[in-house]
Parts: sequence; C-alpha cells; structure tokens
Amino acid sequence: MNILLTNDDGIYAPGLRALRHELLKLGSVTVVAPATEQSAAGHSVTLLNPLLVSEVFETDGTTFIGWAVEGRPADCVKLALLELLPSPPDVIVSGMNAGSNAGINVLYSGTVAAAIEGAFYRRTAIAVSLEYDKKITDFPTAARYAREVIEQILAHKPTEGSLFNINIPVLELGPIRGVKVMPQNVSVYTEQFDRRVNPRGRTYFWASPEFLCPDPHPDTDVTALSESYITVTPLQFDLTDHAKLAELRNWEWKLGK
Amino acid sequence: MNILLTNDDGIYAPGLRALRHELLKLGSVTVVAPATEQSAAGHSVTLLNPLLVSEVFETDGTTFIGWAVEGRPADCVKLALLELLPSPPDVIVSGMNAGSNAGINVLYSGTVAAAIEGAFYRRTAIAVSLEYDKKITDFPTAARYAREVIEQILAHKPTEGSLFNINIPVLELGPIRGVKVMPQNVSVYTEQFDRRVNPRGRTYFWASPEFLCPDPHPDTDVTALSESYITVTPLQFDLTDHAKLAELRNWEWKLGK
Repeated sequence: MNILLTNDDGIYAPGLRALRHELLKLGSVTVVAPATEQSAAGHSVTLLNPLLVSEVFETDGTTFIGWAVEGRPADCVKLALLELLPSPPDVIVSGMNAGSNAGINVLYSGTVAAAIEGAFYRRTAIAVSLEYDKKITDFPTAARYAREVIEQILAHKPTEGSLFNINIPVLELGPIRGVKVMPQNVSVYTEQFDRRVNPRGRTYFWASPEFLCPDPHPDTDVTALSESYITVTPLQFDLTDHAKLAELRNWEWKLGK
Repeated sequence: MNILLTNDDGIYAPGLRALRHELLKLGSVTVVAPATEQSAAGHSVTLLNPLLVSEVFETDGTTFIGWAVEGRPADCVKLALLELLPSPPDVIVSGMNAGSNAGINVLYSGTVAAAIEGAFYRRTAIAVSLEYDKKITDFPTAARYAREVIEQILAHKPTEGSLFNINIPVLELGPIRGVKVMPQNVSVYTEQFDRRVNPRGRTYFWASPEFLCPDPHPDTDVTALSESYITVTPLQFDLTDHAKLAELRNWEWKLGK
C-alpha cells in the first residue's frame, strides 16, 4: 500500500514523525508536507507565489522521507498528486496534528483541508489530530491509536474519495474509552481578543489562546472527545444546504426592477 | 439596517467599493476588510501574529468607511463582531470578489469563508462574487445585480445564521438570463503546475492560471453561471457526511489489538 502523508504543523513536527513511524507498518509512506508551520491555514492555496520544494531525508542523510513544500497543506497534496509522486497513493493521511480538529475547527484546519484536497481527487483521505492540554504530550502512543483506527477504516475498503476525520482525546485525562463515530459539532467557540496600542499609536489585537466551546451538543465529536473517546467523523465537501434549495426555488426572483 | 461588508481582495478593491455603493441604498454600511489581497485564503485565521487595524476614510478624508485589518477575511469578521462594531450587524456581506466562487472553489475562497464565519455567529451572511474573463470588468453593473438579489434574500427574512453564495456571470458574455438557485458543483478542477529550477538549483512550481472544470454537473452553480445566470446557493458548514454515520457505527471498532 502506498500512503501519502502530509500535515499542517510542518514536515519536522513530532506528530508527523510519530504517525509516519506507525504508518510504515501498513505500507510505503511518502511525505509531502509544508516546510513551516501552517496551523489554521484552512483550505488556503498558493496562487501568486512560487512553491519551493526540497527533498528531506532521515537524520542518517540517506533514507528519503519525502518533500518539504514552502506552501500550504492543500498545496502539498496538489503537488504530490500532480507532480511529485510517481503514481497516485492508495490513501492520503494528514496529521497527526498537535491539537484537536473537531467542531467548527474542522473549517479552520489545514490538516483537514489537506485531506479534503485529497478527496477532491477521489483518493481515500484521513485527517488525524491529537487533543492536548500541555505543550508536551505522548505523540507515539497517540499515533499507535491512530494507526489502529486507520487500519480498521481501510479494512472496510472505503469507496473512492471517502473522507474521515479522526481525533484522539487528551491522553493525560485517563484511559481511552473506545471509538465513537460522531458528527461535527456546529456551535461557535467563545473567543476573545486582547486590544493593545503599539509604540507608533496603532491599535492591534492578539487572538486569545482561550478557545472554548460552551454547551457542545451531547452527540458530537467535541463532547465525545472530552469524554476520552477517539472520534471518527465521515466528512464531505458539498457545502450546499440541500434542505433549503426547494424553498429558495419557490421565491420569485426578479432582476432590473 | 446595519450591514457589515468585508471581502478577500482587500479594502481598496474595486469590487468592494462598487458593492458598498449599492449597499448604502439598503442601510448603513461599515467595512471591516483585509488591508491587502487575501485571495484563496480559505478559512485561514491568524493565531500567532498581531492583527493591526487602521481606520479608513473616503478620499474626502472625513467620511468614515471602516477598518482595514492586516489579517485574513475570517479575522475581519471575528474582529468586527467581537471588538470593532458597536452592535451586531443585521447582515454580513462579503465581496464582491473579482472571480467567481462556485464549485469546489467555495472551499478555497476567502470571500465565502468570511460569510461562513458570520454564520458561525448566527448572523445572516451573503458572499458575492463576479466571474470575469478579462482583467477589467464592470463592477458597478455587477454590484447593482448583486444588490437586487441581496434585497430579495433579505425580503424573505432568512432565519438567523442563514448563509448564501451569490455568483454573477461574466457580464461580457451577453445579457443576464435570470437567477437560478443551484447546488455547489463538486468535481475537481483541472490544474497544472509549471516546474522550474531557480539559479541556486532548487526546484519550484508555479500554479498555472488555467483552472478549468471539465464536465460540471448540468444542475449546478458552475453550469448555470456559464449559461449567464446569476446563481444563488444556500450554504451550511456542517461537513459531516450524515449519510455515512449509520454505516460507520455498524463497524466493530477495536483498540489495543
């Protein structure tokens, strides 16, 4: 099995390294990942700048890992599929992200966007993220869980273009209680900005690190994660609100009144 | 009516100026938009850098337009709602973008992401984009069409958090044939990269400006736009593939094998 591995934390991030180590048990792994951290990059892509690419090797200097791209996570997937890989991968894995990507964070996430980009090209694509409380966490243990879940997804031979979002709960909270298949929570997070004035008198704002989801729906990814379940969410990328199409079609649209 | 206007082409873009001119016929308009172009920014947000903000005035130097933010489109909406506006706007309009945002481009679009961010906060939010062939097009005419469609949407008193994506077809193709309510096309675009080597021997890639959608589904935004219809697509931001939840829940998930 040929696996394309990408992420949004950058090719040198410990989460990617830990996940690569586990995925090598399942097949051949080629990494095409951003050269630098791209957290909260969303589904941004690079249209106006050149995408510089470098080959990356293990510390032995000879074992080829893949390519670092000076671009966004979605750029990495496009370049991998259209230019860098000799043949299309069987599966695209994005992660393991340092920080969960659940609820509406799914839309801010470069990790998930890379997986969605893969699904655009009809590949099976899986995003993997690890929630954490403190800076240092046990990426290798989380990567083992992630690999187990990925193995089970692939064992079911998902149809082409299938897209999955896996979140691993905070390991330090206690033992993992199992796997729950959950929809994305849709409520907004509570955010704050810190307003300051710079020495030249200009106002600026810092986004606060507090990013709380008050009252998540009980049957969602956010809630199950907080209860120490690994969550799996099947995703799709049609943003149409199909339930509203018929209603809007009944409106009498006029132009040039 | 209080309208928040944002975009991804930047506060000085002609599409925003033309749309502001039209929206002033509907109510009070405050602009909070990126200081510089943010095309294809997707739903990226700024977590690690400060968001500098400047007040912007009309060329007379006294009429206040709003704020320029050195950040992403979604940052602008967050800052507007949480810090800059004295009270929540009745509607958030994002655009008018130079270039359509139809099909899967909806996911790359900073214009649409800004509207989605507004919907996170339960505001009615409307993205507006203008397809064009050449660099120079008639933004004022397109903005008049956009304002007419926006008026009709608002006349139906959409429920809070309602989200709409309006695309105006290439005006130079011929007369607008009407308004069609259409779902998002979901097929991938044909993209190419131009591979080059820099003077230091490093490989780099330029994304090609060609971005073609072969064989769009006949009943979608992409097709209707190409037939000179204005398209309206109701959007939502739950990426869960609800149709697959039951199937995945039937899988026997195991850990620690």
